[in-house]
Amino acid sequence: MAETHSPAAPRRSLYLDDLSVGDRFISGEHALDAAQIVAFAAQFDPQPFHTDPDAAEATFFRGLAASGWHTAALTMKLLVESGLPLADGVIGSGGELQWPQPTRPDDVLHVEAEILEIVPSRSKPGRAMVQARCETKNQRGEVLQRFTPKLVVVGQSV
Amino acid sequence: MAETHSPAAPRRSLYLDDLSVGDRFISGEHALDAAQIVAFAAQFDPQPFHTDPDAAEATFFRGLAASGWHTAALTMKLLVESGLPLADGVIGSGGELQWPQPTRPDDVLHVEAEILEIVPSRSKPGRAMVQARCETKNQRGEVLQRFTPKLVVVGQSV
Repeated sequence: MAETHSPAAPRRSLYLDDLSVGDRFISGEHALDAAQIVAFAAQFDPQPFHTDPDAAEATFFRGLAASGWHTAALTMKLLVESGLPLADGVIGSGGELQWPQPTRPDDVLHVEAEILEIVPSRSKPGRAMVQARCETKNQRGEVLQRFTPKLVVVGQSV
Repeated sequence: MAETHSPAAPRRSLYLDDLSVGDRFISGEHALDAAQIVAFAAQFDPQPFHTDPDAAEATFFRGLAASGWHTAALTMKLLVESGLPLADGVIGSGGELQWPQPTRPDDVLHVEAEILEIVPSRSKPGRAMVQARCETKNQRGEVLQRFTPKLVVVGQSV
């Protein structure tokens, strides 16, 4: 039966047999600010709309916005620390990624994940490809990122 | 006519009218090492196979591997700094992301991008959605990441 896991619930290390299609997971929160946005962008996405609040006003984003890759990296942090407590780790081979709207300096992020599909491996018994949908939202419930990763999940005996 | 842009060629700031389907772009390089991998992972993807070279040996990755999000962030850095010299910046709404194999401590990364499709905006003249395929490769030509972003590109007059 589908379950909902919130960060307030006791943390469990989940194996393949513990997962069902429809299970939902809610992560803890991460509070963003302009300094974090600029620091990440200076290293990985040095463009004015991510590094310079003043220059950002005259750009496509009309104000400072986080690099999409910053939103993605913070989403991973939230999934690893609280959102998806998988026993052998959160290991993905990729997926479809969308940023419906920019992440802004005062956004407080959390991630809501849902198990969409569980496909047992033919070649490796006890292992499965698990497809999930991970939505990263701010404090107003606005969706900042959608990511549908394919995860490698193993059973307890492997 | 399709052109190939390499980092050795003079840097140009490209507008929509400068792009054609089939144009290819080759970025400069980024040399990775274990310290960078661990530093990124400690902040955004704190799992043993990304943070602890010894513990990583007994995991799915059989040795230290970079977070996929680190590969993605470095890909963006290479595109912004040299790979895709778009006049108004590299702005994406998302895309399909794949990591065919792990990025390792001594990999030297570069990005090869190709323009797949140019779809003019109906509502905003002079703007287009440009789909690209970006392959991130190491010094042996092994593909570490494939990403097919949809980019917002504007014409010179906008």
